[in-house]
Amino acid sequence: MQKAELLTIIEKMSPKEKVDQLLQLSADFYTDDAEDRTGPMETLDINETTIANAGTILGVSGAEKAMGIQKNYIENNSHKIPTMFMADIIHGFRTIFPIPLALGCTWSKEAVEEMASISALESSVSGLHLTFSPMLDLVRDPRWGRVMESTGEDPYLNSEFAKAMVTGYQGDDLKEDMSKVAACVKHFAAYGGAIGGRDYNTVDVSETTLREKYLPSYQAAIDAGAKLVMTAFNTIEGIPASGNKKLFRDVLRDEFNFKGPVISDWAAIKEMINHGVAADEKEAARLAIEAGVDIEMMTTCYDKHLLELIDEDPKYMDLLDEAVLRILELKNDLGLFENPYRGADPVKEKEVILSASHRESARKIAEKSMVLLENNGILPLSQETAIALVGPKATTGDLMGAWSWQGKFDEVVTIAKGLSAKGKNVTVASVESDLFENTTESLEEAKQLAKENEVVVLALGEADWMSGEAASRSDIRLPQSQIDLFNEVRAIAKKVIVVLINGRPLDLTAISEADGILEAWFPGTEGGNAVANILFGDVNPSGRLSMSFPENVGQVPVYYNTENTGRPYESAPDEKYVSKYLDVSNYAKYPFGYGLSFAKVAYEGIALNKETIDSSDETVEVTVTLHNQSEETTIETVQLYVRDLVGKTARPLKELKGFTQVALAGNERKEITLSLAVKDLAYVHPDLTWSVDPGEFHIMVGPNSRELDLVKTLVLK
Amino acid sequence: MQKAELLTIIEKMSPKEKVDQLLQLSADFYTDDAEDRTGPMETLDINETTIANAGTILGVSGAEKAMGIQKNYIENNSHKIPTMFMADIIHGFRTIFPIPLALGCTWSKEAVEEMASISALESSVSGLHLTFSPMLDLVRDPRWGRVMESTGEDPYLNSEFAKAMVTGYQGDDLKEDMSKVAACVKHFAAYGGAIGGRDYNTVDVSETTLREKYLPSYQAAIDAGAKLVMTAFNTIEGIPASGNKKLFRDVLRDEFNFKGPVISDWAAIKEMINHGVAADEKEAARLAIEAGVDIEMMTTCYDKHLLELIDEDPKYMDLLDEAVLRILELKNDLGLFENPYRGADPVKEKEVILSASHRESARKIAEKSMVLLENNGILPLSQETAIALVGPKATTGDLMGAWSWQGKFDEVVTIAKGLSAKGKNVTVASVESDLFENTTESLEEAKQLAKENEVVVLALGEADWMSGEAASRSDIRLPQSQIDLFNEVRAIAKKVIVVLINGRPLDLTAISEADGILEAWFPGTEGGNAVANILFGDVNPSGRLSMSFPENVGQVPVYYNTENTGRPYESAPDEKYVSKYLDVSNYAKYPFGYGLSFAKVAYEGIALNKETIDSSDETVEVTVTLHNQSEETTIETVQLYVRDLVGKTARPLKELKGFTQVALAGNERKEITLSLAVKDLAYVHPDLTWSVDPGEFHIMVGPNSRELDLVKTLVLK
Repeated sequence: MQKAELLTIIEKMSPKEKVDQLLQLSADFYTDDAEDRTGPMETLDINETTIANAGTILGVSGAEKAMGIQKNYIENNSHKIPTMFMADIIHGFRTIFPIPLALGCTWSKEAVEEMASISALESSVSGLHLTFSPMLDLVRDPRWGRVMESTGEDPYLNSEFAKAMVTGYQGDDLKEDMSKVAACVKHFAAYGGAIGGRDYNTVDVSETTLREKYLPSYQAAIDAGAKLVMTAFNTIEGIPASGNKKLFRDVLRDEFNFKGPVISDWAAIKEMINHGVAADEKEAARLAIEAGVDIEMMTTCYDKHLLELIDEDPKYMDLLDEAVLRILELKNDLGLFENPYRGADPVKEKEVILSASHRESARKIAEKSMVLLENNGILPLSQETAIALVGPKATTGDLMGAWSWQGKFDEVVTIAKGLSAKGKNVTVASVESDLFENTTESLEEAKQLAKENEVVVLALGEADWMSGEAASRSDIRLPQSQIDLFNEVRAIAKKVIVVLINGRPLDLTAISEADGILEAWFPGTEGGNAVANILFGDVNPSGRLSMSFPENVGQVPVYYNTENTGRPYESAPDEKYVSKYLDVSNYAKYPFGYGLSFAKVAYEGIALNKETIDSSDETVEVTVTLHNQSEETTIETVQLYVRDLVGKTARPLKELKGFTQVALAGNERKEITLSLAVKDLAYVHPDLTWSVDPGEFHIMVGPNSRELDLVKTLVLK
Repeated sequence: MQKAELLTIIEKMSPKEKVDQLLQLSADFYTDDAEDRTGPMETLDINETTIANAGTILGVSGAEKAMGIQKNYIENNSHKIPTMFMADIIHGFRTIFPIPLALGCTWSKEAVEEMASISALESSVSGLHLTFSPMLDLVRDPRWGRVMESTGEDPYLNSEFAKAMVTGYQGDDLKEDMSKVAACVKHFAAYGGAIGGRDYNTVDVSETTLREKYLPSYQAAIDAGAKLVMTAFNTIEGIPASGNKKLFRDVLRDEFNFKGPVISDWAAIKEMINHGVAADEKEAARLAIEAGVDIEMMTTCYDKHLLELIDEDPKYMDLLDEAVLRILELKNDLGLFENPYRGADPVKEKEVILSASHRESARKIAEKSMVLLENNGILPLSQETAIALVGPKATTGDLMGAWSWQGKFDEVVTIAKGLSAKGKNVTVASVESDLFENTTESLEEAKQLAKENEVVVLALGEADWMSGEAASRSDIRLPQSQIDLFNEVRAIAKKVIVVLINGRPLDLTAISEADGILEAWFPGTEGGNAVANILFGDVNPSGRLSMSFPENVGQVPVYYNTENTGRPYESAPDEKYVSKYLDVSNYAKYPFGYGLSFAKVAYEGIALNKETIDSSDETVEVTVTLHNQSEETTIETVQLYVRDLVGKTARPLKELKGFTQVALAGNERKEITLSLAVKDLAYVHPDLTWSVDPGEFHIMVGPNSRELDLVKTLVLK
């Protein structure tokens, strides 16, 4: 459909029909049974006409259901406009992939794109048109439950994954390719900065930081063509995002040139009353429409009050028309006017969803996402070894993590299943083990098994509800009962390997005496197989942390790209008057970029193809030699960091500006080259614009953000 | 001296002499023994001429010494300009008062002014001319060691104390009144916002927050006439304060109309090289002089490089002349040209310092500063009761806290001395007790004493070096050995009272089973007597917290004046999707304004003299009735809070806007009136200016920031 046709439709729409188009309702307003709709309708105080004209629907799943709703919808809609189905498909639809924080640890754009592509396919055959993903909030505070939903703490890495996800979801041509869904960038902006890591809390950062650290990943996704942007729940400079004109009109639309619609997060327009910037729903509606929020999710400030505003001032009619056009354009971009059922396909649905190949992909990506934190030589295990598997995460299907609404526990390969399938001598504890309480029986069995076996694999961690939305924790240690279990087993067992299932960086002090620690995150449907493949050495772990693990919660926030301060700890950690704590170092326990493998790779001989450059349009080639000093085939994630020695603002000690994954055979020596675009040395200056300064830069290459022994100086004239 | 005369001196000064005038050196450059000066001179690479002309001196004490240095100085100085002596007199000179955080808990402007006045007197007779106080950094993070040096978390309360301190130090006429010293506002700005509570770390807040929360207390002190302003160590919007033109030229000078000189903190100009905004000392000097920093403390960027800058651009000569004039004007304001020895007086020194009346004042102020956190009825104690005093803070003179360089441990009244002097049956543990380690003997004695006595008073806490500068802690619990000691004693003793000596809010979970907890802070020279007077009931405790105590470090930052968020915890703490933690409440363990007394005071019947007002020039009278429902005479701190129901930015749930202390006899009922100036309802709007909105305000009165049952609505037309 051409834009002119859309405009013609809009011309024919009554003001109330236009307002309805801005409303997003959940699936329960569209059940076949009118009685089931009564409750929701009363809650929102809306009638069947509004439901018939509400522009978009949230949370439908299943091809038949979606097609049925669409059919009825078009019949009932005054202008035969199709509806559009949106949902939170965050790390897989029914085939659940590792949580995004784990995806971040793959350091693999291909893996992340593949995850998004499969998610899109399973979603589209089930009738969905858009996913509320990628979530691109920079995260620095592990107390926040939604760190599990982000790819991590780094603007550069997050931006790379942002592009990969948008490409994976949307493909090249959303209108033609029915296996794709539209992507929604969220949460604009800086939702991850919640004070105290407490979900929904105030965010308070300088505009410099907002622009330099928080905005780049959103912008990367927008540049990659993401179709929708969602508002954040938080305030920025005291103003809720959902009514923040500067953020949405000035930055998102004028600066970032975003043309698509903006959607509020769930009830976020109405919540501006709670924020105390709107006295009532009408004022909330006014703030939101002025800020340029087009779709109101699950509250009715627009639906109830936009017409009043238009009566008072015709400028709101223009804003309404703009919003409707953006919504219809999005539907049109998806081809819904021509093909309202789009990819929905009950037959394909059965073939595609949770297919063997999707499971295989989920397993491989899970393997790439796991991070080997500790290994004193015990790993990999031999298949012959007598192994006991113990702990509350051993036999549970709770390996998917939050935002897995279509995933089913009984479709998950548990760690017990995974290990038992591969190991020849694996005993799984038979007494049920709880996350928060040891029984006498469970402890006794654990100790007995520890005595009888060569190795105890302890599967510990968090429940799915302990991270995700509204799941902040002030205490980021393992539950005390699990620490007790560890201590009891440790005292008896010859070797103890801890496999961690969790949604955030934890304080792991209590298990520091483990012989090996595998951070498996919430690995998804194929979690148990992935764990087994790593523990038994079929796969050499290649995951690298995309978020720092603190020593303790009192050290939070810990992130690698800090500024130097005037009294740097790094240069004199033992002196009194440096920026430090009395009782813990400034360093993360496990830093950004960190992860072990079964190989040992040495880094040698950094060189730049030019050490002095004249223009920021240039690219510098950075060469290092990797030497696999082991027999093991491995994948090494080579990381390139930069330090701008003198800036107009204090510059980070290091900033990731490139990385590559290199396969190395046993004992192989390989020269690799990383490209550094000099324009990537730009940062936000005091005038709030990005530019590159002439001067000296340290170019550093190494296996993680801490071990950067190879350094060269680059001079920009 | 007239300004014209100062200008004449400046005209005669060579450029190098002017530059020298900007340099501040420490006392060791002015020892009589030239050999002792060699080391410091080599470190700074300066010669005797520079020393002779360096404008100000840091850290001299003692009248004779100061007079001697001044005499030599004037003889050697090329223009017979007197030097000026500055030092860190933060909570008393030799008579040590409670630390500033404890002073904040007095809620008594009179007490704080008296502390400053006595500090000024002891300082001035010892030859000092200026104190680097008041420290006015708003503090919200108890990990930061320098919270002990601030009066707390509230802009209003801090501003009130700012005025009281400046008045106490400076009096009405600095030139005439030799018992006064000049005050220095520090640290401009927002030093207390250090990320992670780690000293010297980056500060990153929005400009709205900077202006609304952090700047008011500095401005209050400047409005009260403070003579000097010190730069902060941190960056603001990425730019170190000491080179932050916007902060010092635009805000401090143009907006706040500050006319006096600005001094860098120790080495802070040179530290801009570490911050990475200056390549070398010359660039650091350029940034600082352009920002308007006049005095360079203990580094020589100016001294070495300002002349080069002037050679390159004559505008720096103008900046230099301005700086010199401001420094000479400050000396002139103190009358130093006429009387270079000023208040220094070896005879008076002996009379005044640590006089009985100063001790009495220190004791009374310490009594006002202590906060009774818990009391299950055990307090006050009878003098007849068999009491054992146990714990590492029982017999130590380490009750003064950081920034007490003139205070002496052996002049401190220990808790043991204080209790023994008043109680008739007090047994003090004889085995020495360490802060971080229990010996078998010390534990055995403690248990024995617990068995033999009716009450155990456990004196626990921190050493002086655990708070103050460069003394951040990631763990804010008591040391584990003290928790162990508590548990051992608790298991045996009939009653346990904990007296806490510490410099920051602590996580007190481990001692929640105490029968009584007295937060005594670092109470100063007369600490032991003050503790005794409260425990035995001679003084009814009236201290109220000026900084919230968190439940645990994972809940930090906790402060009372939070915004509501879009999903408020307060209205539905048990719901899932509200802003909260899974494992701890959002509330402070002990909130701002909290403190018990031995009395029970009820608040009744709030009334406003007008409930609707037309102009922000008005004042509203708020009346409540207090009813002392006990026999005890008491002092009640009545607190007035306001909530602006709808703002242009999210408004705090409550903001302190007034308070008064009321003496109540046993069973007395008294009507009291608090005044609320409507202009105090102003806040920083999105355009960064302060103004008052029309609309509704909740006016709340109560005994602390949590218990505010009396509420009235005020309408501003």
